[in-house]
Amino acid sequence: MTESVDHAATATPLHGVYQIIAEEMGEVDRLLRHELQDSHPYVDRMLKHGLQLGGKRLRPALLLLAGKICGDINQTHIKLATAVELVHTASLIHDDVLDDARMRRHMATMNALWDNEASVLLGDYLLARAICLASSVDSVYACQVIAQASHEMCQGELRQIATRGKFDISEEEYIDIVAQKTASLYRACCRLGAYYAGATSRVVNDLEQFGTDLGIAFQIIDDILDVLGDERRAGKSLGSDLDKQKPTLPIIRLLSVGNEDQRKELLTLLREQPEGYRNRIRQMLAEQDAIPYAQDRAKGFVIAAMGRLSHFTPSPVLEAVRQLATFVISRDH
Amino acid sequence: MTESVDHAATATPLHGVYQIIAEEMGEVDRLLRHELQDSHPYVDRMLKHGLQLGGKRLRPALLLLAGKICGDINQTHIKLATAVELVHTASLIHDDVLDDARMRRHMATMNALWDNEASVLLGDYLLARAICLASSVDSVYACQVIAQASHEMCQGELRQIATRGKFDISEEEYIDIVAQKTASLYRACCRLGAYYAGATSRVVNDLEQFGTDLGIAFQIIDDILDVLGDERRAGKSLGSDLDKQKPTLPIIRLLSVGNEDQRKELLTLLREQPEGYRNRIRQMLAEQDAIPYAQDRAKGFVIAAMGRLSHFTPSPVLEAVRQLATFVISRDH
Repeated sequence: MTESVDHAATATPLHGVYQIIAEEMGEVDRLLRHELQDSHPYVDRMLKHGLQLGGKRLRPALLLLAGKICGDINQTHIKLATAVELVHTASLIHDDVLDDARMRRHMATMNALWDNEASVLLGDYLLARAICLASSVDSVYACQVIAQASHEMCQGELRQIATRGKFDISEEEYIDIVAQKTASLYRACCRLGAYYAGATSRVVNDLEQFGTDLGIAFQIIDDILDVLGDERRAGKSLGSDLDKQKPTLPIIRLLSVGNEDQRKELLTLLREQPEGYRNRIRQMLAEQDAIPYAQDRAKGFVIAAMGRLSHFTPSPVLEAVRQLATFVISRDH
Repeated sequence: MTESVDHAATATPLHGVYQIIAEEMGEVDRLLRHELQDSHPYVDRMLKHGLQLGGKRLRPALLLLAGKICGDINQTHIKLATAVELVHTASLIHDDVLDDARMRRHMATMNALWDNEASVLLGDYLLARAICLASSVDSVYACQVIAQASHEMCQGELRQIATRGKFDISEEEYIDIVAQKTASLYRACCRLGAYYAGATSRVVNDLEQFGTDLGIAFQIIDDILDVLGDERRAGKSLGSDLDKQKPTLPIIRLLSVGNEDQRKELLTLLREQPEGYRNRIRQMLAEQDAIPYAQDRAKGFVIAAMGRLSHFTPSPVLEAVRQLATFVISRDH
């Protein structure tokens, strides 16, 4: 495994997206590499591994595109695109600890290679680095936006823990949690990109809404991929939502469309987790519209997201944004 | 257990310290309480518990005193004193997860009451809130200082993990790690307090050095209390340094003064951890000068710390600072 970021290798549908911001993404990669060095060899080795876990670099790309669609990209954008990737990587590392996941992007997770203790600390380390970087920007605004996003991410994750085993939550509550735990960082990327390109507050708000909708769509697809559980293709540990009794959209839908017997069986499977219960749930999902329904909802959010940008005149940058949004719902990993 | 902060109850030696900043500490408590609210009841309950774990509020007190010795305390000081307490509480919560500690300040730890997952997230949540608060200050400087301290804390903790089982590290390396993992936040408190009171950069640097020395002394005493292991008095889980094979000053000293047989026995105890090994180590510690030696080193750092403030004219504030510094090495919990 080389250290280079494999945009091209694993994310061909994103080729056009990255092409239009290739130079800037290169700068982000260089800054990431620079930030993730430590004079202590043990810490340095962990950082080098952590650097590879993020992979697709969707959030930096989003921040840069949000900037480019509004004006010029400057060094502040490069710094903040790097900072949001650090926040994202920190959250992945903590997630993997919490899920006891062993694999991510076809590589061993931090907690599999080191241990939970070092992994929790490395997550904290990256979050601190992110704020160091955000606070190297002239105004305090970047820190405000990133800290607020980070706060909402935790809030959403904690709310999700509180709903474990509660499969009767409404779709609205599910969406609300997803908007916090995942979409808040997408929202922050768009806000920062637009703001530091000098966009008007109306445009900043539109892009922020775009980010929110896109982030929700992203998480719905993530939840579909987790329940379908094709680990080989996804390159990461899956199925943990079921094991952890998280009520995700496919399950919420399945419960709402099944008859009384099906509901009962499903709830028993979800709660008691007998051997082979995941496969039985996948069978039930296939017999109903739960997966296409969830996919349609994700698609609806992407359409809504693009609607927020309807006042932008067509351009190669807008086209790249559209491609990114399409990728979010068409991806299989 | 009421929610009020029991400065008076558990920290009588600090009475004079808190008296001189009583009003400001009251404001910090109110702001802490205000910050640690969440609209979601599950998160709110966790926050209310987390609020009580910090206890002595040494770091806010230090920040306020550093401000007061240099000039006037303003609302920025109150915000930042609250922010550093949030950073500290976040690190306590993560530490307790990592140490699998069940008790702190005579109360159950977060991870004992909830679980590791929720506790890791709550730590992240508090760190994010700290940065939200620091970024509500006009200049970006506060975020820089707090993020840098937070980064160094993680760096020190990770270096400590890397030295596990390596009981032959030098005292200097031990002090260096302690300076990062513990003293960096003390340093930040002093820097912020002085800076936002308008101190000259020379005075800011002096106070920063004071904070560094005091923080090192604090950690040496913490390590002594951990190895002596009087949990009833300390009100928290102890002995985990030994279990985790952390080379702390008493052990480093014991290894360096023992003869070859004693060294061998000690290393075997430390590495193999047979039943009752902690008591045997305590016995060995009592037979040598390891504990008084470590106490003397801590005292040396406090004397050095006070030396940094020699150009301040005697005043009730300086006296309070001296009391705080004395408490750090005389405390038994």
